[in-house]
Amino acid sequence: MTRATLDFYYEFASPYSYLAASRLGPLAEAAGVHVEWKPFLLGPIFAAQGYSSSPFNVYPLKGAHMWRDLARLAERYGLPPVTRPEPFPVNGLLGARVATRLNDASRPAFSRALFRAAFAEGRDISDRTVVRQVLAGLGHFCDEVIDQAETQANKDKLRATVEEAQALGIFGAPTFVTADKELFWGNDRLEMALEHAVQIAHAPQAAAQ
Amino acid sequence: MTRATLDFYYEFASPYSYLAASRLGPLAEAAGVHVEWKPFLLGPIFAAQGYSSSPFNVYPLKGAHMWRDLARLAERYGLPPVTRPEPFPVNGLLGARVATRLNDASRPAFSRALFRAAFAEGRDISDRTVVRQVLAGLGHFCDEVIDQAETQANKDKLRATVEEAQALGIFGAPTFVTADKELFWGNDRLEMALEHAVQIAHAPQAAAQ
Repeated sequence: MTRATLDFYYEFASPYSYLAASRLGPLAEAAGVHVEWKPFLLGPIFAAQGYSSSPFNVYPLKGAHMWRDLARLAERYGLPPVTRPEPFPVNGLLGARVATRLNDASRPAFSRALFRAAFAEGRDISDRTVVRQVLAGLGHFCDEVIDQAETQANKDKLRATVEEAQALGIFGAPTFVTADKELFWGNDRLEMALEHAVQIAHAPQAAAQ
Repeated sequence: MTRATLDFYYEFASPYSYLAASRLGPLAEAAGVHVEWKPFLLGPIFAAQGYSSSPFNVYPLKGAHMWRDLARLAERYGLPPVTRPEPFPVNGLLGARVATRLNDASRPAFSRALFRAAFAEGRDISDRTVVRQVLAGLGHFCDEVIDQAETQANKDKLRATVEEAQALGIFGAPTFVTADKELFWGNDRLEMALEHAVQIAHAPQAAAQ
């Protein structure tokens, strides 16, 4: 038996990534699954599929349903009423860089707070001041963190995560990836992904059979 | 308090419509919701959005995930292993016409059986012989039903359902629509749609407040 782990790929502009990020902590803890938070960018992923914008903009009826669905799910999950970022999708690049820069212990809280700023507080998270305020609110030295987030080494680290996602066949967010490289796409699949992570960790190793 | 009702829009080529059709009966009965089965066609719906084929073909990574997801969900729901219709999507026109022709009591069983032929038995449901066999297996006079299904009046009835779906803003299948015209898209939303149907049926009428 090995430790149950799950990789969580998320993008700050993605509404369902917001929901997943908000729900993930307690569910993963209850399941005994260690989650790796992997901020990445949907821009290159969508571009490679030929989308000119978010699928929710490219297909307006789908977009209209998404905002209704998001409102209903937020209520169901006990989250604040959803605010709709304008423009949508917001540019999540700075947020992704900062999340990449932070260490494993700080990344989840920052990510949840930035998502909440975007989708529950109606704030423009592409604005450097907003990112600074979110960082400061969590007790970080915000200027220092942002400077480090914008070093070439950190930019490259984020780019590597995007390439890793593409190599895995990830096409949207959120996506959960288990140790055996199974993809679970969407907030709706969080529970199944956790279950699968636990199952394969508890299963006898192939080598031991 | 009024009777809880739910409209279920489904297309025979749609994998998640198959899952929803297979699960719907017992869940709706347990919730006390009367379901109207509404066979329709995604072709015109997709064409209006600019898709040249099923989104699962247009976006191959999304398609690859869908088949994995379908296999996992079928196992979870206790359904037989999924067979993949070739070509995908299959032409579900004859099936939709027959389902439209059948009465409310016969439509669900025929629809479930035709979905199962497509997604669990690997049969080509665009083939008239297969549709005949499915009808015959349920005790219908299959030639008579197919003849009636292909009358102009019945074709027009199916077309009216497609137009109704478009007027509601339906963009994919399955879609559940409650009496207050809320759209719930996808097999994943079946439970929420049923809950909402019950809620609005039990809520005090606006006029009575």
